[in-house]
Amino acid sequence: MGSFCEMHSNCEVEKLVSDEVSIEKESINRSSIEYAVKDLLLGLGEDVNREGIRKTPFRVAKAFFEGTRGYRQNVLNIIEGALFPEEGLDNTNKIGHGGGVGGLVFVRDIDLYSYCESCLLPFQIKCHVGYIPSNQRVVGLSKLPRVAEAFAKRLQEPQRLANEICLALHEGIQPQGVAIILQCTHIPFPYKDFDSNHKGWVNILVSSGSGVFENKNDDIWSDLFSLVKFRGIDKDKIVIKESLEDQCSNWCPSFKIEEIKYNPIMVNAVSTIIKSLGEDSTRKELIETPNRFLKWLMNFQYASNIDLKMNDSIFNGGVKSTIWSEFNVPFWSQCEHHLLPFYGFVHIGYYNSKGCNQIGKSLLQSIVHFYGFKLQVQERLTKQIAETISSLVGGNVIVVVEASHTCMISRGIEKFGSNTATIAVLGHFSTDIAARTKFLEGIPSVTSFEGQ
Amino acid sequence: MGSFCEMHSNCEVEKLVSDEVSIEKESINRSSIEYAVKDLLLGLGEDVNREGIRKTPFRVAKAFFEGTRGYRQNVLNIIEGALFPEEGLDNTNKIGHGGGVGGLVFVRDIDLYSYCESCLLPFQIKCHVGYIPSNQRVVGLSKLPRVAEAFAKRLQEPQRLANEICLALHEGIQPQGVAIILQCTHIPFPYKDFDSNHKGWVNILVSSGSGVFENKNDDIWSDLFSLVKFRGIDKDKIVIKESLEDQCSNWCPSFKIEEIKYNPIMVNAVSTIIKSLGEDSTRKELIETPNRFLKWLMNFQYASNIDLKMNDSIFNGGVKSTIWSEFNVPFWSQCEHHLLPFYGFVHIGYYNSKGCNQIGKSLLQSIVHFYGFKLQVQERLTKQIAETISSLVGGNVIVVVEASHTCMISRGIEKFGSNTATIAVLGHFSTDIAARTKFLEGIPSVTSFEGQ
Repeated sequence: MGSFCEMHSNCEVEKLVSDEVSIEKESINRSSIEYAVKDLLLGLGEDVNREGIRKTPFRVAKAFFEGTRGYRQNVLNIIEGALFPEEGLDNTNKIGHGGGVGGLVFVRDIDLYSYCESCLLPFQIKCHVGYIPSNQRVVGLSKLPRVAEAFAKRLQEPQRLANEICLALHEGIQPQGVAIILQCTHIPFPYKDFDSNHKGWVNILVSSGSGVFENKNDDIWSDLFSLVKFRGIDKDKIVIKESLEDQCSNWCPSFKIEEIKYNPIMVNAVSTIIKSLGEDSTRKELIETPNRFLKWLMNFQYASNIDLKMNDSIFNGGVKSTIWSEFNVPFWSQCEHHLLPFYGFVHIGYYNSKGCNQIGKSLLQSIVHFYGFKLQVQERLTKQIAETISSLVGGNVIVVVEASHTCMISRGIEKFGSNTATIAVLGHFSTDIAARTKFLEGIPSVTSFEGQ
Repeated sequence: MGSFCEMHSNCEVEKLVSDEVSIEKESINRSSIEYAVKDLLLGLGEDVNREGIRKTPFRVAKAFFEGTRGYRQNVLNIIEGALFPEEGLDNTNKIGHGGGVGGLVFVRDIDLYSYCESCLLPFQIKCHVGYIPSNQRVVGLSKLPRVAEAFAKRLQEPQRLANEICLALHEGIQPQGVAIILQCTHIPFPYKDFDSNHKGWVNILVSSGSGVFENKNDDIWSDLFSLVKFRGIDKDKIVIKESLEDQCSNWCPSFKIEEIKYNPIMVNAVSTIIKSLGEDSTRKELIETPNRFLKWLMNFQYASNIDLKMNDSIFNGGVKSTIWSEFNVPFWSQCEHHLLPFYGFVHIGYYNSKGCNQIGKSLLQSIVHFYGFKLQVQERLTKQIAETISSLVGGNVIVVVEASHTCMISRGIEKFGSNTATIAVLGHFSTDIAARTKFLEGIPSVTSFEGQ
C-alpha cells in the first residue's frame, strides 16, 4: 500500500514536472512572440509605448496561442469514451439502413475560424460533417464539431483541413465512411484600386471523403448534397484535389499582390511567430508566409501613403437644408489591440444650412481609406472621418461605422454574428433628432459584411 | 530581498491552498449533482447502468457547471485593464460628440445562452449592448460580450439579466450611460394538444438603461433603435419593468402547464442540483423551479403514455409506385447523454409497389411523439420511426430527422447555427437513388427551428 502511494505520488510529481516544463516552454514561446510583435510595431512606425498598443504584444501572443490551440489537442482523446452502442435497423425480412448500421448522420453549419497558412490571417469556415455508422455504434454528436475545431485551430489550407478532419474521424470512429464539406471565405487584400467595394472575398468549396465516400463521384454522396443543396452548395463547384502536392493552392489573395522587398527585421519577426507556435517555418507552404503576411500588414503603416487631394471633388451647389448622404463606403482597418483585421462600411451624412459643399464619392472613399489604413480602433476611426468631413462642409456631419471585428470572432469570445456600430455627430445633427433618425433609418440593412 | 521571496512564496502557497479548497468544494458539488441525476433517471424509469446513460450523471454535472460558470467569474476583473484613452471630438468651435467623449458604441447580435431560473432549461438570447463613453476613454470591444456572457451563464430571468449586464458595465466603464436590449427565446413546453407544430416558442424583448439611458422614453434611445430596427426590434414591443418586484415574470412556458404531484425524491434531486451550483434554492424565484423542471422532464418517461391507436387512420387506396410524403412533422425529445432538449422536424416518405396504405397525418404525428417523448439519441429516433412506419406500409420507407441539439449549442462546443440531419431508409428507397433524391430534394428549407 505504502509503495503504491509512493508510486502514485511519484507519477504525480512526474506529471507536475512535465506540466511545468511545457508551461515554461510555452512561456518562452509567448515572450518570443511578444518581442517579434514589438519589432512589427516598430516597423510600422508606431510608438510601442503608446497607451493603446503598449500591451498589444501581450494580446497578440495570447490571441495566436488561442487561435492555434489545436496543436496542443489530442484529437483521438476527444472521440475516445464517446462511442455509444446503437442498434441498426432490424433487417431480418427487409433491406435498408438506419441507426448504428448505415444510417447517415450529418451535422451541418458548424461555424469555424482558422488561420491561413499562406498569410496568417484568419479565414471563416462553414463546416458540414457526415458519417455512416457501422458495427452498431455511433459517436456523441458534439464530438464532430470538436474534432473539426481542433484542426481548424492551426495554420491551415482548406483542402488539408478537410482531409485532416476526415482522416481523424475515420480513425476514431471506424465507420463505413466520413464525408467533409467546407465552405471557406478569405478576406480580400486591398488592391491598388481602392474602390473595389470589398468584392474580392475569396470563396472556396472543398470536400474530403473516406471509406464509402472515397470517390467523390459516387452515388453515396448524393444524399449529402441533397441535404445541403439549399445552402448554396453545388457538387460541381467543389474543388477536387487528389494529391497532396496540389494542396498548397493559391486560393489566398496574398498571391495576387505584387512582391516587394520588406524590412528583414519584420520578416524575421513573423518567422519567429510561426516557429513559436510550434510550426516548422521551413515547411514548403510556410516559407513565404512572412512576406505574404507583410503584404497585408504594411498597408497599415503609421504614415499612410494615401494622398487625400482634398479639393479635387468638392462641388458647390447645395440646396438649403438638404442632407447629402453616402451609404456603404467600404473600409479595411487593423485593430491596434490585436493586430487583426476589422472591416465593414462607413455611412456619411452632412448638411449646411448656409448652402452646402457636396463631396464626390471618390474623395469620401479616400478619406475613409486614409484613416482606415492605420492601426486603429473603431471609435477613433469614426471620429477622425467626421472631423475631416466637418472641416470641408462646415460642421454638420454624422458618421456611422459598421464593422466586423476579427478579434471578437476568430478568437477569445468567438461571437460569430456580432458586429459593432459607432457614431460621431457634429453640429445640427447632435441636436436635431429628426434629421439624425432620418439618416440612421436610411442606412441599408446589410446581413453580411463578407461580400458574398 | 530574501524576505520578499519568502513573502512571495507564502502567498503562492496560500493561493494554492485556497485553489485546492475550491477544487475540493467543486468536486463535492459535482458528485452531489451526479447522485441527483441518478435519482432523476431512476424516477424516469431508466436503467442507470444502460451503456448510453451510464455516464449521463457525469455529463449532466459537467454541463451544468459549464452552463453556470458565470457564478465563478469576477466581472469587474474582465473590464479592468481594458480601458483605453481615446480623444473626443475637437469641440473648440463646434458642438458634437464622437470617440472617447459621447460617441455611441453599439455591439449588436451577440449570441448568448442562459438557463431559465423558472424551469432550468436553456434559453437563447440575441444581445445588443450600447454605451456612450466619457472622460476620454473607451473599453476594449470584446469586453462587452464577455461581461454579458458572464451574467448569461447563470440561472436567469431576461429582465434581471439585462439589469445585471447594464449595472456591471456602468460600474466598470463609468460612461455617460449603458443601454442593453435582449431578444430572448424560450422553447415551448409540449401541450396536451401535440399538434401544436412548435408554435409555442416564447419571445420576449427587454431592455435596461443606466445614466443617460435611464429613462427608456428618452430621445437618447432613438439612435439605438434606429440601428437595430431592421433586426425586427420595435421600441413599443419592449417589456418595460421598473421595479425589481416585477422581475419574477411568468414568461417561462412552464407556468402554463398544470401542476401535478411529482415524486418527492425527484423534486429533492432538482433542489440539490440548484444548491450545488451555488444558488440559494430558497430564493423566491427558485422555490418552485424543481416542480417546473419536472413538468418538462416527466414528458420523457421510459414508458410513454402516448397511445398509438395504429389502425385509426390508415387508408387503402394507394396508386402503384406513388411516393407519399409528409414533411415537417414537429418533434420534441430529450438527449439521453446530457438531459437537454433536442427538437426539430421529421420528414417521412413511403411507397409500396403493390399498392400502398396511406397513413393519416395524425397517426404519423403520434408515432413521432411516441418515440420523441423518451430519453433519446437522434439516430435511434430516426430508426424507430422508420421501422414502425415500415410495419404499416410494407417496407419501403425513408425517414429524415432534422434537429437542433441544445447540448451542442448551449454548452461545451457552443456552435449556435449547427443542426443535425439523420436518415434511415428501408426497401426500395435504399436501392433506388432517384426516388431517394426526389424525396430529399423535396424537403422544404427551414432556416430556423425556433418557430419564429
